Parts: sequence; structure tokens; C-alpha cells
Amino acid sequence: MRTEICKKLEIETPIFAFTHCRDVVVAVSKAGGLGVLGAVGFSPEKLKEELDWIDAHIGDLPYGVDVVIPQKYEGMGEMDPEKLESMLKGMVPQEHHDFAAKLLSEHGVPEWPDKDDEMGLLGWNEAMASQLIDVALERPNCRLIANALGTPPADIIKRVQDSGRLIGALCGRVKQAVQHKEAGLDFIIAQGGEGGGHTGDVGSIVLWPQIIDAVGDTPVLAAGGIGDGRQMAAAMCLGAQGVWTGSLWLTVEEAEAEPAQKESYLNATSEDTIRSRSWTGKPCRMLKNAWTEAWEQENTPDPLGMPLQGLVTADGIRRTHTYAAKGDCQKVAFNPVGQVVGQINDVESSRRVVERLLFEYADSITHVNELLEEV
Amino acid sequence: MRTEICKKLEIETPIFAFTHCRDVVVAVSKAGGLGVLGAVGFSPEKLKEELDWIDAHIGDLPYGVDVVIPQKYEGMGEMDPEKLESMLKGMVPQEHHDFAAKLLSEHGVPEWPDKDDEMGLLGWNEAMASQLIDVALERPNCRLIANALGTPPADIIKRVQDSGRLIGALCGRVKQAVQHKEAGLDFIIAQGGEGGGHTGDVGSIVLWPQIIDAVGDTPVLAAGGIGDGRQMAAAMCLGAQGVWTGSLWLTVEEAEAEPAQKESYLNATSEDTIRSRSWTGKPCRMLKNAWTEAWEQENTPDPLGMPLQGLVTADGIRRTHTYAAKGDCQKVAFNPVGQVVGQINDVESSRRVVERLLFEYADSITHVNELLEEV
Repeated sequence: MRTEICKKLEIETPIFAFTHCRDVVVAVSKAGGLGVLGAVGFSPEKLKEELDWIDAHIGDLPYGVDVVIPQKYEGMGEMDPEKLESMLKGMVPQEHHDFAAKLLSEHGVPEWPDKDDEMGLLGWNEAMASQLIDVALERPNCRLIANALGTPPADIIKRVQDSGRLIGALCGRVKQAVQHKEAGLDFIIAQGGEGGGHTGDVGSIVLWPQIIDAVGDTPVLAAGGIGDGRQMAAAMCLGAQGVWTGSLWLTVEEAEAEPAQKESYLNATSEDTIRSRSWTGKPCRMLKNAWTEAWEQENTPDPLGMPLQGLVTADGIRRTHTYAAKGDCQKVAFNPVGQVVGQINDVESSRRVVERLLFEYADSITHVNELLEEV
Repeated sequence: MRTEICKKLEIETPIFAFTHCRDVVVAVSKAGGLGVLGAVGFSPEKLKEELDWIDAHIGDLPYGVDVVIPQKYEGMGEMDPEKLESMLKGMVPQEHHDFAAKLLSEHGVPEWPDKDDEMGLLGWNEAMASQLIDVALERPNCRLIANALGTPPADIIKRVQDSGRLIGALCGRVKQAVQHKEAGLDFIIAQGGEGGGHTGDVGSIVLWPQIIDAVGDTPVLAAGGIGDGRQMAAAMCLGAQGVWTGSLWLTVEEAEAEPAQKESYLNATSEDTIRSRSWTGKPCRMLKNAWTEAWEQENTPDPLGMPLQGLVTADGIRRTHTYAAKGDCQKVAFNPVGQVVGQINDVESSRRVVERLLFEYADSITHVNELLEEV
């Protein structure tokens, strides 16, 4: 089942795996799909290390890199990451820092040992993302760049396309998809509200076909709710050229997360997620817990916008990921995931996930063909 | 494409149309699907009239009737509708009546002319619904009863099944689906959060397959987000035995609604709906407007539970439906609909909708079959 976008990327099967783990990137590309490394948490130096490892293990197969450039954010236009960070830091009320610190401490999350190793601005801005893209474009096997929020700036689109690579972006509204197309993106990722991470509130089954109809011949990848091959078949029936998956890879054998975080995902049902602004400043789907509830109470600070809220929470993200099993850490941990988490109950290898999806896909198509014959 | 449930109901195609309009019921059954009359707004006498008309026009074709018996509600257990109504009326704060009346008046919604023709309790309770079911069971062509909220009481299930009819119920959570199965229901309607009316918040693409897996051989109908044949194909790929549609029928030629209400639906996008408790007391998806916003403000009354909120709003439902084009009526009208409303932009006949769905369905399956051959 090679769609047009598969042919352009020289991959066998239209399964795109978004992940923060380099091992998963390599395993999925080796299984015939395309591994896409989420780079937002990395400094340019750290991204270099990760891509070095990928390049050393992936052979001649392609992969992608995903960045986050919001279309609107505080400090937009400032392209020097240090100046941007220093400007933004002055905008965060102390009350927010104190509230975050109190929540973490009350739930027994250990302090970061090195007080001088302060977390700075994450890559949720053009200043940082542009540097990450520079790193990615040095790698011949990196064949695709995706932006997780909004249409990328024109110069970035040009830079990526001039290098012979594909560039696309996520969206959760028809209007955004049309903007993406008008900006000349090579593909569009339509993410329904079920999806993990930054997401809108229109459900996949409604959103996908509307975006597919609105953007004509621009390929659309379906995101938000793909956990098995039947859901992939549904996406392809609706006209998608492939599936963009994320939650599926959080608990695979190759995923690097701490066992306690994986357990949180494996034990969750589809009703245990919430769209919350409490970590990044924009609505982002994640596991519901004491942290997400605390920021919604009256008489507690309201989450700031992006990327300001990230300055409040970066330390908490690092600590809850690193010390996932300590104290009641999972009650205040940042665990982004889609509603499809309710279907993810077993640890499998990445290859096995790809194979299972294709098997279930074929089964599903056989089933509907048989139904057509029932008269 | 006759699934098992089609064979049991002796219908040609697994398209179930939920509607409050008798004309649509007849037209859909005549087109090969199954028309299902939503009876919640009718008194037993009015329902008799509607079913008389249906029986006179439908020939020997089957149809269904849908009622609303919540699993939990104020006054549960009281089976005398008059006593229930009088008990519940005493529980509604005057503040709520005043707030509702003020909103309607501020938006120029005319008063109901006959002051003595007071709206009473609607059918959102067992006392009323049980009487509606009695009326339905007198009709040989009524072959199916559905409950829109929760598992029906055991004696109602028995009464319907003993009469040789099928009984099923909607649900938005896996746990509810399992309860439905354990209660012995003949079919389950799995409604994703995209759906119109009372609905949960798990998206269809995630919910449907989980419910299908959880209930084994009990047939599942997919609801929430079915607006065309591609979405129907997606539902069948996921293992549904048919589709339960509602929004699709609000604007068809045969639908009785006032033109101004139909316009509201035709002009809405998928982002214009909201899940709100402001009309019925339970989360119900509808067009967002000044009414839904007003009940969410601070310093305004919180919606009561079901069926108390219905006592507050019954007069508003009647007035906003009847005087749909008067004043700013649409800004405070009760217009329940799913997110799929964004795809519904033209007035078609009911027959044409059924035919279009089947045509698009076949097209979609052909498309995925062709994709499988691309290597």
C-alpha cells in the first residue's frame, strides 16, 4: 500500500511514527514506515548527538524531524534565543513558579541535584526551532520536516524545500489546513481532538474528510486516534495518504521512558486524558492528574501562554520524567498522550506494532469487501 | 451490504436515521434504511398521532422509536408522571426560571400566546418514557426501541423483547456498553463525543473499536460523525454493523423545522458546536450561541440536573423552535447537532441522502482496494 507520499519518501508503508526516542525512529524506519524524531526538547547540540546515533544505525533509510513553531507566541520575531529567553523570563510572575514548585514538592518529586543546571527556554519558538532545523538539514537521510503547531514561516518552508526535502505541518481546523496549503506545504497532518499533544477539539472522523476535501491534491496524513490497523483502514477510507501516530510509540520496547511513566500510559483508559494548558500554555492532550486539576481550580494561577508557561514548567517536565517512580510523581507528571491510550495495554516491539497494523489493516479491508457481498 | 442486524429487521441497508420528524422516518425506511422517531418531546397522545401517520404512509416497512430514560435522575422511582412533575417543580429555584425568561426576552423571543398552556415535564424519565413505549408496542411495524441514555430498566427490556422487537441503547463509554450487554440488549449504539445530543467526550475513532471489542457478538451501531459514505465505510472497517445518524436529517427536505433553524445548521462549521448542560441538565452537543455561553458565565445560575433543567427550559425549547426566525431567536435557540454539521451544507431529500451514502461508501471501498494494489 504505497501512496504518493510513500513513493516520494521511498518508504514501503504510510505509517509515520512521531517519537522523542531515537531507537523508535530507527526501528520504525527499518520496519518500512517513517520514524520522525520530536526535537522540541533538545538543544541543537543534543539534537546533533541524537541524529549522529540515528545516522549510525538507520543504514540508508529515511527519517524525519519534528519541531514546534507556534504561529503566535510571546516574543515572536526575536530570533536570538538568549535574548528571547531573558525577555520572557522577566514576564513570568513569581506566583507561577511558586505554585509549580509547591505542587512538585507536595507530591514528593525530588529536586534537580545541580542547582546551577537551570532549565531554559524549550524549543517552542522560531528562534530555537530554526537552529534545530539547521541541524536536521545537515543530514542526508533526514527527508522530512514537520511543524507541530501552525504554518511554518515562509523562509523555513523555502529552506527545507530547496534542500529537496518535504515539509508539512499539523492542524486541527479546516481553516489552518487551507493556510498550510496556501503556504505551499508538501503535506498536511490533520489531527483530530482525540490526539495527544497540542490539539483542537474537532473529532478525527469529522475533521479528516473535511480537511482532505479542502486541500485538494495536497497529501493529508491522519492523526489522532490511530492505535490499530482498523483505525488505519478507516483513515484510508476517508482519503488519507497515511497515518501519523504518536501515542502508539510511548510504551514500545524501544521507548526510553522510565517504567513508571510507561505504566501510567498502559493503565490509562480513554477517559483518563484531558486537554489542558497547564504544561505548555496551549491546549495539549495528556493524562489527567493532580497537576492538570490543580491549574484548573479557582484561586490558583491561570496557565500563561506559550512559551511563557514552558518557562514555569520546564523544570517539572525534567524532574517528573527523570524521577517518574519517586513519591507521587505520576500525579504531577507531564504525560502527553491521545485518547487511544485506552487501547494500548501491552509492550510490543516497534517492528511488531508496524506489522500488526498492516495485518489488521488487511483484515479490515477483507471484512468490508465481504460485507459488500451480503445481499 | 446487509449485516446481521439488517437481516433481523428486514431492511436493505444498515443506515439508521434518528429524527423527530415522522416524514423523515417514512422516507428513510422507504429508501432501505430504518427511520427511528425520537419520541422524547411527545406526550403519549401526540406520539399516537405521529405513529398513526407513519403507519398510514410507511406500507409494510419497519421503523423504530427512541425514548430517553436516564440511568440516574432526580425523582427516579416515581412512576406517576403527574406526581413526579409536581415533586420536581418544587425543586427548581425561581432564580433559574427568571434567568431563562430574561435570556429569551432579551433576544426578542415571543411569549407563548396561551398562558394556561404551560409546558410540563418532558419525557426524560422512566415514568413518561414507559408510557411512550406502551404506545410504540401497539404498532406492528415498530420493530425497534432505542434508549438514548443509559441501560433501560429490566422490565422494559423484557417487555420489548417478549413482543418480538429489538431493544438497544446509546453509550459513550466502554463501561456502559458492557452494562448494556450484560442487561441483554439486542444492540448497542456507540456514540463518540462528536455526536449531537447527549454524548460523552471520547472520540468516535477511538470509542467504536473499543466498544466493538468489549461486547463481542452484540451488534454495534456507530454514531457520532457520520455525514457521508466515507465515514460510513470507516465505521464498517472498524467493525460496526451499521451507522446511527442524526445530524444528517435535520436539514433534509422532509424535516419539519422552521427555515431559520435549518439555516443555523446549514451555516455552522464543525467548530460551532459545544457540549453544554444548559438545556437538558446533562452534557448535550448543540450549536454554541448566546444561551450556551450565558449559562457558563460566573455569577449566573449553574444548570440543574436532568430532568430539573428541562423544567426550566421546556418553554424555551418550544418558543425557540416555533418562533425560530423572530428577533435574535437563533442566539438563544436549542439546536442540538453533532460536529458533522460542518459537512452539511445543502438541502437534499432523505432518499437522496441514503443513496449518496451508499454511493460514497462503495467508492471509498474501491479506493482502499486500489491502494492495496500499489506496491
